[in-house]
Amino acid sequence: MLDLELSTSLRSDGRVRAERGALRKLGGWLQEILPAPRKVVLVSDRNVAPFCLDAAEESLAQAGFHTHAILVPPGEESKSLKTLGNVWDRMLASGVDRDSVVIALGGGVVGDLAGFAAATLLRGIELVQVPTSLVGQIDSAIGGKNGLNRPLGKNLVGTFHQPRLVVIDPDLLSTLPERDFRSGLAEMIKYGYLRGPTILDKLRAAGDLEGLRSKPELIDELVARCVTIKVEIVRKDERESGERALLNFGHTVGHALEAADEYKSLLHGEAVAIGMVAASFLSVDLGYAPATLPAELSEILERYGLPLTTPLPPDRVLPYLSADKKRRAGKSRWVLVARAGEARLVEDPPATHVRRALEAIHSEPAKDSTSDGVAA
Amino acid sequence: MLDLELSTSLRSDGRVRAERGALRKLGGWLQEILPAPRKVVLVSDRNVAPFCLDAAEESLAQAGFHTHAILVPPGEESKSLKTLGNVWDRMLASGVDRDSVVIALGGGVVGDLAGFAAATLLRGIELVQVPTSLVGQIDSAIGGKNGLNRPLGKNLVGTFHQPRLVVIDPDLLSTLPERDFRSGLAEMIKYGYLRGPTILDKLRAAGDLEGLRSKPELIDELVARCVTIKVEIVRKDERESGERALLNFGHTVGHALEAADEYKSLLHGEAVAIGMVAASFLSVDLGYAPATLPAELSEILERYGLPLTTPLPPDRVLPYLSADKKRRAGKSRWVLVARAGEARLVEDPPATHVRRALEAIHSEPAKDSTSDGVAA
Repeated sequence: MLDLELSTSLRSDGRVRAERGALRKLGGWLQEILPAPRKVVLVSDRNVAPFCLDAAEESLAQAGFHTHAILVPPGEESKSLKTLGNVWDRMLASGVDRDSVVIALGGGVVGDLAGFAAATLLRGIELVQVPTSLVGQIDSAIGGKNGLNRPLGKNLVGTFHQPRLVVIDPDLLSTLPERDFRSGLAEMIKYGYLRGPTILDKLRAAGDLEGLRSKPELIDELVARCVTIKVEIVRKDERESGERALLNFGHTVGHALEAADEYKSLLHGEAVAIGMVAASFLSVDLGYAPATLPAELSEILERYGLPLTTPLPPDRVLPYLSADKKRRAGKSRWVLVARAGEARLVEDPPATHVRRALEAIHSEPAKDSTSDGVAA
Repeated sequence: MLDLELSTSLRSDGRVRAERGALRKLGGWLQEILPAPRKVVLVSDRNVAPFCLDAAEESLAQAGFHTHAILVPPGEESKSLKTLGNVWDRMLASGVDRDSVVIALGGGVVGDLAGFAAATLLRGIELVQVPTSLVGQIDSAIGGKNGLNRPLGKNLVGTFHQPRLVVIDPDLLSTLPERDFRSGLAEMIKYGYLRGPTILDKLRAAGDLEGLRSKPELIDELVARCVTIKVEIVRKDERESGERALLNFGHTVGHALEAADEYKSLLHGEAVAIGMVAASFLSVDLGYAPATLPAELSEILERYGLPLTTPLPPDRVLPYLSADKKRRAGKSRWVLVARAGEARLVEDPPATHVRRALEAIHSEPAKDSTSDGVAA
């Protein structure tokens, strides 16, 4: 359904392919660009592997590749130095060399971890992303970012390492637990607000999660649209010096919530959903968006069962905002939205406005209105 | 004494400057290319810091930079995930942002560790190398390689991350312990064998270590020559797909000895010295070099007090040879030398020849000549 070239400053020969049933074509597609025989190390997690590892290994073996699988525990806790060291050493013990290929077969965590490992093993070997989650397929697996978490925040370390190939198989989405699928929809709604109302209109027309999941052609269409947007943005701004930063709509607060929560109860997309609500309040407060924006955004998030608020009070969230890596020269950076299709960056908005945005997403709003200024 | 541009595919604006007293100019030089105010994190170790950290911080502060120093334990054991995690977190806690600069102020270990941290913190921030060791000044600080060690071998993980600036101050070499200075001379002798006899002739004329260390102008001249060679090679072959690989003369066995020794008793240059002797025997054995080469090489190494043999028997060294990351598609890669100025790569030489080369550097040669073939 989609075959896009992704040429950037880091690599001129990247490619993104999307198709139902793509997983069974993985070996053939890889063989076209990185001929067998060579060693292929598949990184996956114990939740995802039962649904797709056998098919991937079979496809690769048929194309003549020597495969080796490494399974990591599912969840954000695998984006750690401990798991990284373990993955490095298992790759080395399996006999990887500079011609070997790492394939990330999983969601965002596997993609970030395997991407970091490929970027650093033997000073960098080839990477293929096969995202199995919705957020991976429409966002995180495209663009070469990888990352690990540190106690101070999420993705605070990582590199840019462009995959040679991204293989997107929407069939894999049917095995996703409902909550993970919902979480990915937050990123889809994000694209809607960055690039115009079409995506949002289609999501509203589908009704709700059940309605959407019953329409594979619609899912294909929406996935293809998001992938195309992501590829266009990465082509123009690989290093996130400009337009790519808009993809962080909802992520300034989202990452802070995940860190304050210690990556325990919130999925990434859930945190981003709440973060987009906060950013919409800030957009109104700074006079950029009409007063109706938060309600409009909340309606579509709620329609798909995404959270709008957090029990974490502003004082718990604020310290993590200032540790966010999007901060440049001591400032925090927000993406504001005026309406679907109109977004911009703002550097270091006033602390009182930031606090009000965090109060607006607090599910037990503070009654004490004298706390303004503490945020400085 | 030297101001070279170093433009590569990864960065077009790199620069290498060498001058006696350069350390006191660090702030001014940095200010010319990355204007203050901005945060500068200095990474050094407890051996080196007493000799140069104050001067570096003073120079930077005078130029308007905000400095923060991070000291790590000296020695190869700092090229570990544990120390890396610690350095990352201390950098983050100090408030680094994407405009901050990491300065590596130390020898090869500090350069590799700080380089890796800069390459990965916030997905990559600016790096300045201020090498304080001879091996750092003439080799490892130039060219953007960094690395960490794994149980299976040295520098098995790392990235290419070109420094914006390399500042080389030969004054710092006068504080080096004798053994570290000797170790650096092994890399200098390596350049002699790669690029012609001038360096070797000057080293022979200086007589010995004492003679050389008493002639600062000669040291300056030799350092400048080696730096120039390294810059030329990196310009042509940043990613080590061709000529840069010649810089690994002595390193195939050298790295294996370091790993087999668990990085305990051998300095890097000492291991490279023994490795060059092994490679010279292999060069003769494969008919590439005249039979006089090992003796000629050994003479100049011995003149400067560098080791020629190892107590480690071939069977202890061989497993680490096949884990070396220079290996491509399962082969090991050696640099052979015919004479000073004439070198070439050989892939996967016959196991019997490799074993004979390892026996030639074994200080207690095995009496059993039936062991040929075990190496396969």
